[in-house]
Amino acid sequence: MDFWSYIPFWDKLSEEQKARLLTASGEGSHPKGEILHRGSLDCVGLFLVLEGQLRVYTVSEEGKELTLYRLFPRDLCLLSASCILRGIEFDVMVSAEEDTRAIHIPPDVYQGLMEESVAVSNYTNELVSTNFSDVMWLMDQILNKKLDARLAAFLLEERSLTEGESLNLTHEQIAGHLGSAREVVTRMLRHFQGEGYVSLSRGSLRLTDVKALEKLARGSER
Amino acid sequence: MDFWSYIPFWDKLSEEQKARLLTASGEGSHPKGEILHRGSLDCVGLFLVLEGQLRVYTVSEEGKELTLYRLFPRDLCLLSASCILRGIEFDVMVSAEEDTRAIHIPPDVYQGLMEESVAVSNYTNELVSTNFSDVMWLMDQILNKKLDARLAAFLLEERSLTEGESLNLTHEQIAGHLGSAREVVTRMLRHFQGEGYVSLSRGSLRLTDVKALEKLARGSER
Repeated sequence: MDFWSYIPFWDKLSEEQKARLLTASGEGSHPKGEILHRGSLDCVGLFLVLEGQLRVYTVSEEGKELTLYRLFPRDLCLLSASCILRGIEFDVMVSAEEDTRAIHIPPDVYQGLMEESVAVSNYTNELVSTNFSDVMWLMDQILNKKLDARLAAFLLEERSLTEGESLNLTHEQIAGHLGSAREVVTRMLRHFQGEGYVSLSRGSLRLTDVKALEKLARGSER
Repeated sequence: MDFWSYIPFWDKLSEEQKARLLTASGEGSHPKGEILHRGSLDCVGLFLVLEGQLRVYTVSEEGKELTLYRLFPRDLCLLSASCILRGIEFDVMVSAEEDTRAIHIPPDVYQGLMEESVAVSNYTNELVSTNFSDVMWLMDQILNKKLDARLAAFLLEERSLTEGESLNLTHEQIAGHLGSAREVVTRMLRHFQGEGYVSLSRGSLRLTDVKALEKLARGSER
């Protein structure tokens, strides 16, 4: 049960609170494609991802999807418990993007802890803020997208200069080429990875969807 | 000092905590146009609006502004203290859109209360969630904006059917006309009011910027 240590507030809970959380929570498997949460009427609770990948997205009235962010192992999915978060007035969907194993935490149990423990409440705050930041980043992309096109163009250019799809470049180096900050490039590369355009490893990256990158570089996306 | 009762957690503070907040906080005047907060490096603290109106907005690298939401009397401006919110990774600006009087709360004092009091922490959570919801609404508008154009067109049509700029319509009635929900229409009308397009009062509304509404109805905005 040491995956509970993924959650920063675990050590700040009392023995009774830990026991309550352990008793109420259960591990589950979610095959790729399963929808774990459908909007605010579906108050399913939180998921602590152990393996796999979850996608959090919105669906417009016309059925158009928009991916807000993804959750990877050690991440806690909060918005599937939006019913317990006062002030959240929008609906998201959560689906398994890969075969996923996750611990499910019932909303009422988590809410109880939030009302008792300042550590749980402040951590929840941090999660909401992180999700909010992801959406702000996405909106900036949508309104002012340029770096994505520039990064895609740069990666394609580098590829034409080397052999194969693997590029030996650090994020720092790429940021230098683009006149951007390392953190900004890292974030964008992670986004590219989430979309399946590239595969990241230490000090290098592989282009896994050259066509998508070409489309992006031409600025014809969306 | 009874404006402190605007803040839901006030009654849950100890006498010592109330005294600390009162001692550290001060009332200030901010003439229309004053910028109260410039991005995350400017950790100015929170503002409790007493009179006037604040605008929270982002500025893109190219200088393009985007209004995220507005704050009115009794609202607490939190993102001007984003330095104390772990997980907030974006910059906003806050300016006085009207002559504004507000109580300023220093960030360190508020942070101290957040770490001591589950009531303060959970209220902060609610504020972040509300701001997050405003941004989600805005993004939906940007991506799927239709209702704004439809509402503008409807208001102009009603105006052509009546005399003067004043329309006797409830939000419920407008929602019925547009096949939408009352809450959705109310939110959009408040947005219109914030932009200066209409002026709302009980059971009626006045069109205050017909040109802007016409532009919106043609779908040529943004």
